[in-house]
Amino acid sequence: MHVIADLSIVPIGVGTSLSRYVAVCERILVEAGLSPRLHAYGTNVEGDWEQVFGALKRCHEALHEMGVPRVSTNLRCGTRVDRSQTMDEKTASVEAKLSSTD
Amino acid sequence: MHVIADLSIVPIGVGTSLSRYVAVCERILVEAGLSPRLHAYGTNVEGDWEQVFGALKRCHEALHEMGVPRVSTNLRCGTRVDRSQTMDEKTASVEAKLSSTD
Amino acid sequence: MHVIADLSIVPIGVGTSLSRYVAVCERILVEAGLSPRLHAYGTNVEGDWEQVFGALKRCHEALHEMGVPRVSTNLRCGTRVDRSQTMDEKTASVEAKLSSTD
Amino acid sequence: MHVIADLSIVPIGVGTSLSRYVAVCERILVEAGLSPRLHAYGTNVEGDWEQVFGALKRCHEALHEMGVPRVSTNLRCGTRVDRSQTMDEKTASVEAKLSSTD
Repeated sequence: MHVIADLSIVPIGVGTSLSRYVAVCERILVEAGLSPRLHAYGTNVEGDWEQVFGALKRCHEALHEMGVPRVSTNLRCGTRVDRSQTMDEKTASVEAKLSSTD
Repeated sequence: MHVIADLSIVPIGVGTSLSRYVAVCERILVEAGLSPRLHAYGTNVEGDWEQVFGALKRCHEALHEMGVPRVSTNLRCGTRVDRSQTMDEKTASVEAKLSSTD
Repeated sequence: MHVIADLSIVPIGVGTSLSRYVAVCERILVEAGLSPRLHAYGTNVEGDWEQVFGALKRCHEALHEMGVPRVSTNLRCGTRVDRSQTMDEKTASVEAKLSSTD
Repeated sequence: MHVIADLSIVPIGVGTSLSRYVAVCERILVEAGLSPRLHAYGTNVEGDWEQVFGALKRCHEALHEMGVPRVSTNLRCGTRVDRSQTMDEKTASVEAKLSSTD
C-alpha cells in the first residue's frame, strides 16, 4: 500500500534548538528511500506503508538514543485506491488550477 | 517501544456521514488490544509500536475494502524513555493540577 | 460559524513535565465557555469560531508569560453547514453504530 | 504575535478530487499576505496571528459557499518569544546541519 505522508517530529525536553534533531531524522528518511522534502513545519515523504512507518520508528529510536526523553510526532498520511498519485502530482494538480484561472 | 497515540481517520469520497466508517475502525482497534477511547475528534490508543501502527494499517485497508477511495489520517504519537506513562496517568496528572489550585 | 476542535498544545523548552502548562490552558478554555474535555492527547472544545481561536491565542500568550519560549500547537477543527452537530452527537453517532451491530 | 503555521484543509462530501478547493484556499492565503508555500500535504504560511486565523476562517467560509458541506482542517502553529524566526530560517537551520556533517 503506497502512502504519502507528512511528518512533524518534535523532541521534548532538550531545549528550543531542534534543528540538529530534525537533521538526524531527515537522514533516516533519506536512507529509507523516502525522498523526504523538508518544509517549514515538517517533511513530506512517500513510499510503501512499512517503509514509511518503519522509518518513523527509527526516528523515535534515534532521538531517544541521542538523549531525548520525550518525542511527540504529528503525522498526516493518505492512501487511495481510485488511482495512483505521487507527491509531485498532488502539488501539480493544485498549481494547474491556480494558473488556469489566473 | 510503548506508544500513546491519537488517531483521526477521515474517509474521503463517501459523503458526509462518516460514523459507520469510524465504527469499523474502532472495532479493529479493540481487536488489536489497544483499548481505544473515542472522543469527538479522534480516538486515543496505547500499546506497543507495531501493535498500534499495524492496526492503523488494517483500518486503512478495511475502509478501502468497504469502497472508500481515499483515506486521510491525522495522528499524534508520543514515546518517552524518562519514565513509563499510561493514558490514564497523562490525564490524571493534568486533573491533579487543576483541582489542587482551584 | 460553529466549530468543533481538538487542541494539542505543546510547550517547548521547559523540560518534560508539561501537565502544569496543560492545566493553565484548560482553565483558559473553561473561562472562554468552550467546555473543554481533556483526553490523553489533547482537548476537545466547541463554540463559535472567534471564541475558539481567541482562546487558543490566549493559551499561547499565557504560556509565553509563564516563561515558555516556544509553543507548538496541533489542532483539528471542523465546520459543517449541512446540519448542526455537537461533540456529544458526534460520539453518540459512532457508539450507536458500534452497539447496533454487536 | 508572529505565527508560523501549516494548514491542511480537507473538504468532505464533494468526492475525491480536491485540488480545485485547495486552489481556492491558496488564493485566499495569498490575498491575506501570508506567502503560502504549497507542499504535498498542506501549505506553510506565516504572519500575524489574526492575519493567519482570519484567513483560515475565510477558507472555511469560501468552501461552504462553493457547496462543500463539511470542512475539516488539520493545523500546526508555532509561536516563540526567545527570538524571531521566519519559515526560511527554520528550513535553513536544518539544511545547514545536514550539509555540515555530510
